[in-house]
Amino acid sequence: MAPLLSWLDIDPKSHFSLHNIPFGIISTPADPRPRPAVAIGQSALDLRTFTARNGFAALSMIQPHQHVFGESTLNAFAALGRPMHRIVREYLQSVFLANGPFPDVLEKHEQLRRDALVPLSDITTHLPMRIGDYTDFYAGLFHAQTVGTLFRGAQNALQPNYQHLPVGYHGRASSVVVSGTSILRPHGQILLDPTAEAKEPVLSACKKLDFELELGCFVTRSTSLGEPIPIAKAPDHLFGVVLMNDWSARDIQAWEYVPLGPFNSKNFATTISPWVVLMDALEPFATTGIMNDKQALPYLDEKGRNSHYAIDLQVTLTSPAGSTSTICKTSARNLLFSFPQMLSHHGIGGCPFQVGDLLGSGTISGETTGSKGCLLEQTENGKVEVELGGGERRKFLEDGDTVTITGVCGTEDGALVGFGECSGRIERAIQMSLM
Amino acid sequence: MAPLLSWLDIDPKSHFSLHNIPFGIISTPADPRPRPAVAIGQSALDLRTFTARNGFAALSMIQPHQHVFGESTLNAFAALGRPMHRIVREYLQSVFLANGPFPDVLEKHEQLRRDALVPLSDITTHLPMRIGDYTDFYAGLFHAQTVGTLFRGAQNALQPNYQHLPVGYHGRASSVVVSGTSILRPHGQILLDPTAEAKEPVLSACKKLDFELELGCFVTRSTSLGEPIPIAKAPDHLFGVVLMNDWSARDIQAWEYVPLGPFNSKNFATTISPWVVLMDALEPFATTGIMNDKQALPYLDEKGRNSHYAIDLQVTLTSPAGSTSTICKTSARNLLFSFPQMLSHHGIGGCPFQVGDLLGSGTISGETTGSKGCLLEQTENGKVEVELGGGERRKFLEDGDTVTITGVCGTEDGALVGFGECSGRIERAIQMSLM
Repeated sequence: MAPLLSWLDIDPKSHFSLHNIPFGIISTPADPRPRPAVAIGQSALDLRTFTARNGFAALSMIQPHQHVFGESTLNAFAALGRPMHRIVREYLQSVFLANGPFPDVLEKHEQLRRDALVPLSDITTHLPMRIGDYTDFYAGLFHAQTVGTLFRGAQNALQPNYQHLPVGYHGRASSVVVSGTSILRPHGQILLDPTAEAKEPVLSACKKLDFELELGCFVTRSTSLGEPIPIAKAPDHLFGVVLMNDWSARDIQAWEYVPLGPFNSKNFATTISPWVVLMDALEPFATTGIMNDKQALPYLDEKGRNSHYAIDLQVTLTSPAGSTSTICKTSARNLLFSFPQMLSHHGIGGCPFQVGDLLGSGTISGETTGSKGCLLEQTENGKVEVELGGGERRKFLEDGDTVTITGVCGTEDGALVGFGECSGRIERAIQMSLM
Repeated sequence: MAPLLSWLDIDPKSHFSLHNIPFGIISTPADPRPRPAVAIGQSALDLRTFTARNGFAALSMIQPHQHVFGESTLNAFAALGRPMHRIVREYLQSVFLANGPFPDVLEKHEQLRRDALVPLSDITTHLPMRIGDYTDFYAGLFHAQTVGTLFRGAQNALQPNYQHLPVGYHGRASSVVVSGTSILRPHGQILLDPTAEAKEPVLSACKKLDFELELGCFVTRSTSLGEPIPIAKAPDHLFGVVLMNDWSARDIQAWEYVPLGPFNSKNFATTISPWVVLMDALEPFATTGIMNDKQALPYLDEKGRNSHYAIDLQVTLTSPAGSTSTICKTSARNLLFSFPQMLSHHGIGGCPFQVGDLLGSGTISGETTGSKGCLLEQTENGKVEVELGGGERRKFLEDGDTVTITGVCGTEDGALVGFGECSGRIERAIQMSLM
């Protein structure tokens, strides 16, 4: 299929081709009120302005819910459900289509183009959703194998449950932040010498600060207490996908995590990319994940449905000296469980969901060197160093480092479906005397 | 100090004496809109009606925020901060005081008494707060010791971190429900024979359903990402306390919890009592918790402040046959860390809080038989049985069982500061074919 062509000048390498139409929340210097938008090429279409100026007039019979674009999050739009997301997205594609059916809506409406199309360089992005609960899974098999081997040896790398259910834990919703937010190096209890007989912790700035390459997926449908989500219906409960960096303080984690799991080692910040790529936009890139040699129990059995996505993922590290190095290349296919499986498992006991709840995939790593989605794996917990450009090396993140995750589906110019960036810079820990 | 006397007829054994004045959210058959109230004796004072009819006129200069009592949760009231909670609570005490300074406000205002004072038997209670994030700690030392001994033996009962920090994990906010909500027995993956070599799980209704006796404490002040909460200021960040039952599916938990902690075994329901007892009401009962033989790091050092409470706690089990047995008596003093310590630890890495966030204490158990706050401890994970009245026995909870937690401070008639009930009845699991 040839790429869809737009009357708008879109860089053929843009993540935000006409095939994408991701949704986010923006503000501008002229109007600081956060409001919905879609990204298209190098621009954002301000949907509040577009709506107020009758941009959706052609849809008014079938999409009478245009107030959702007056909100400061995407929750109300998400709550309309996937059939409506499809209608709105396809309409917006048609509005931007070269020789499309609606030239008067925007293409030939110079005033509205000027008012509603804003260069991406002029906008501030905000958290796209009001997140009720955030859950982080651990579905990256190669990550779990490598980390398990590091801490328990190769024979016991995977726990007995690992292939039977998507292992997950509840994360902290309040510290999910949007790309670009500075990440303050956290303090916490650590053992200065974990090998010492006496386990006497100190309060210290984290010395083993790490990133974790993940995907996030937003829930689009509410459920009640006690209501399970059948696996066949789970895709209808998903809104869209973002890139995620689940920042991790490895030394704090190592000390705190027994017996109830990670806590302060994770809850200081989790960064997500600002543009939510809708499930429909990902559908052409649907594929299989990692084959599971355990038969899924029926409530998790997708019966061969392709519910993973061929998203090429990359992590770069930009040092304070300014050199940028690619430190990871991998694929979102490296997951043992899909988002529908995670959601059905999460709900099997009756846990209720709200629109805007966030599911994290767990760290995505490949099998090879250069495809590991965190420094814990890459440096074997600080035993070896990663080479950056310009002769620099890292065991863990240093102050001033910027970690940037990118992800994109497809390779064809003009038809990329990408996520843009999920980025954060490490800031020096606050002084203890100020605490 | 003699008990405060009211012109209202209050049962001297009432948990809601004039010394208490707990806040909650109620509705009535005549008006189903949830709204704030306080409990006093056998009545609730509807604060929306009381406010609308100028009940707070005497406070209008110092408490101009009366719109908070038009809300459907206590979040807006909580956000006013502890000094304002004190003013409002003490004013309401004075309104109810026999020979008090404000007889015209309610005592002699028959119409307002009729409209705003509702028998507790006529009201429905609702979740008192809109909960952003819910965190559950594990600060009950004797619980941790007993459970640790069960699973790892007495030598390794406590992990090395246990006495140095309040161990905690993120819980699920969406499944926190108010007392009286039915608890559906959850399904989940379990091992039918955990001792078998082959670890092949099945999907099953939980066979080891348990309660956990806890306290919950609400956060009353928001903080920003990166902002720690100094231990000396932590008490100002707390709104009030409720009873909590952290229902637990022990067989699901045993299978799922490695390596990231409890998940579906907990997120099917957590019940809290409806009336929030303010920190000020608890202050006369402030006392020490369990002595910690590890010196607290400075950020957790309360310097001898009494920040635990002498709350007598009791759990009863009412069987479907109708017999009610007391299965646990203990004290809230059986905690190694206080809520201020939990909060300061939680925030030390920069995790932000919102008004309405909920902290759970962890299961509260004493050292002796009959003081264990869950069946896992009482029955040694199902090895022995608990005797109920009428010849009944339990290893874990059965369908139709009702677990009721009560808690009260003080013993003096007319001066009790209690929590009422935190209660839930187990309903049979839904049929698999409906899932």
